[in-house]
Amino acid sequence: MTRPDHRFLILADDQFDPLTSKTANSCVRYFPERIVGVFDRRHAGKTVQDVLGFGGDIPVVGDFTKGLALGGGATAVLIGIAPAGGQLPDEWRAWLKTAIEQGLEVWSGLHTFIGDDPELGPIAKKTGVRILDARKPPAHLPIADGRAAEVPALTVLAVGSDCNVGKMTAQLQLRDALVKKGRRTSFVATGQTGIFIEGWGIAVDAVVADFIAGAAESLVLQGAKDHDIVLVEGQGSLIHPGYSGVTLGLLHGSCPDAMILCHQSSRDFIGDYHGRAPWVRIPPLPELIRIYEDAARPVRQSKVIAVCLNTFDLDERAARDAVERATKETGLPATDPVRFDPAPVVDAMIAAADEKKKHKH
Amino acid sequence: MTRPDHRFLILADDQFDPLTSKTANSCVRYFPERIVGVFDRRHAGKTVQDVLGFGGDIPVVGDFTKGLALGGGATAVLIGIAPAGGQLPDEWRAWLKTAIEQGLEVWSGLHTFIGDDPELGPIAKKTGVRILDARKPPAHLPIADGRAAEVPALTVLAVGSDCNVGKMTAQLQLRDALVKKGRRTSFVATGQTGIFIEGWGIAVDAVVADFIAGAAESLVLQGAKDHDIVLVEGQGSLIHPGYSGVTLGLLHGSCPDAMILCHQSSRDFIGDYHGRAPWVRIPPLPELIRIYEDAARPVRQSKVIAVCLNTFDLDERAARDAVERATKETGLPATDPVRFDPAPVVDAMIAAADEKKKHKH
Repeated sequence: MTRPDHRFLILADDQFDPLTSKTANSCVRYFPERIVGVFDRRHAGKTVQDVLGFGGDIPVVGDFTKGLALGGGATAVLIGIAPAGGQLPDEWRAWLKTAIEQGLEVWSGLHTFIGDDPELGPIAKKTGVRILDARKPPAHLPIADGRAAEVPALTVLAVGSDCNVGKMTAQLQLRDALVKKGRRTSFVATGQTGIFIEGWGIAVDAVVADFIAGAAESLVLQGAKDHDIVLVEGQGSLIHPGYSGVTLGLLHGSCPDAMILCHQSSRDFIGDYHGRAPWVRIPPLPELIRIYEDAARPVRQSKVIAVCLNTFDLDERAARDAVERATKETGLPATDPVRFDPAPVVDAMIAAADEKKKHKH
Repeated sequence: MTRPDHRFLILADDQFDPLTSKTANSCVRYFPERIVGVFDRRHAGKTVQDVLGFGGDIPVVGDFTKGLALGGGATAVLIGIAPAGGQLPDEWRAWLKTAIEQGLEVWSGLHTFIGDDPELGPIAKKTGVRILDARKPPAHLPIADGRAAEVPALTVLAVGSDCNVGKMTAQLQLRDALVKKGRRTSFVATGQTGIFIEGWGIAVDAVVADFIAGAAESLVLQGAKDHDIVLVEGQGSLIHPGYSGVTLGLLHGSCPDAMILCHQSSRDFIGDYHGRAPWVRIPPLPELIRIYEDAARPVRQSKVIAVCLNTFDLDERAARDAVERATKETGLPATDPVRFDPAPVVDAMIAAADEKKKHKH
């Protein structure tokens, strides 16, 4: 999966905001130069910066056809949301049809594969347009058998208190910082947005359940080639009732040497159950650390070595307090790697990598 | 999925034995009257009883065509193994083709759907033969949202030290015993063999990973209708590196009130990794109980209330010792529900059901 010189219009109608449009936001963060605009009728006329607090003057438009014409003309439409259940909202079908008929690629991370859509699939085939369903798993996956534990590289998995707390973003920030320090570091994408950003990976939440761990294992083996540190994108949370299976499969399949714990400081309950009475309370960080280390232990001893907080909704003072509190509570290096210096966590990873190398010799 | 008056030939070539051919063996245990023979060239000429130690004089044959003619002529071929990875062994294709061309249904629990096979699928369509791929998930599954926790019935999930230790068999034995005691008890099938036996269910290891818990939830809601006790078939093990994700998704999605822990007494390591150095050691039963209760806790408080041992490979004395040791170690009722009286575990379930009912009033 290559990312040629595409100019993307991002489809995020009615859902473009700092939390909901996770895929859109990460694409804005990691390849803004390729984005001609974002389609959301609620925020038409604003800039991406106005809505997200970053992203500069990329325009938000409320007219799909005008959006396609932006920036010299989009060459691809990227679906920028990942709704619960992954279904394609009916309303979007007409827009995608327009795009495909104009010869634009569609990049999607939905569970419903656009290429298999009875209406859109045949149109794309007829017009020779590529539909990239990033969640479509490869045809043959193995059952995990522990080979991920044997790579010489240091493998670090991001684990979290919940979905959508910044696990991917943390690993991407850390990867950049480690590369700057001369460490050959790979980012292993396990979800659709990471795949959009990296150009390869497997959406482990979309594979057949028996193969979650096997998919994770094969990703680590690939990421470890010619790299000294492998940062594995985390998924879900062990305490998320809907997605915990994906999280545990990823943990046991990737056999990480170490974990980093990611948490959004202001969040007290698992976020996907807001519609109901709050259901699953997020325990204190030391308890979360225990949960992950206990879950890993029967398969592989693995320690949480650092904490990454997401403090985007806190003011500067509260954010610094949150980091300090996390450090004190857990006895581990902590930071918000987007907002503050990632050094405390980067240094912990480098120390772990050097330690692993030493024990190999 | 009904089980009409089929006469099954079970395909288990080269793998018919007490452990490997799990699907075949369970079908023999639960509907022997519908099985005309088992195809395995290694054991041709023996009876099923000779090979398994139960199953009576059902013949094992080494000639597929002769097998099809047994017992007045088979009306369906049932694939009696579930190999790692679930792929269709190439050699079997010719046999299945023969069967389909003769108008026999094919019942399969493989991950590779026979109906989608480029050679067999079209032949079946042309000849109007039904292929039943038990692992094929329903088209629309929900994301779990906790409704399984709200059913008035007592929900009991079987959890295990490993795959293939007798979780399904234990629940089926207990269901029969509970029904005999007048308790309206359902068995909720979560795997292909259970589906063959019960006629309904979802193979949770074959759904898209994000929907494991949602599938489990929908099964519990269905199983709880008109029943007072719901016994949920367990899958895998939280300490099985390959399949732990399925196990945790099933645990969090089914929101059980209670669990029974299943273990094969003679097993010390997770069985699927025999080819390599033994990898994951099975911890003592009290530690396993702690692992399951800890994993459930963030989502739902659930206690292991009894232990079911599988002692098929021990002599009588050793089996009784194992049961006694398990009782002492865990402080819980224990039995081998196939070999011995299931009463200790049945009584624990009845007590839990009565307790739950009392708290409702």
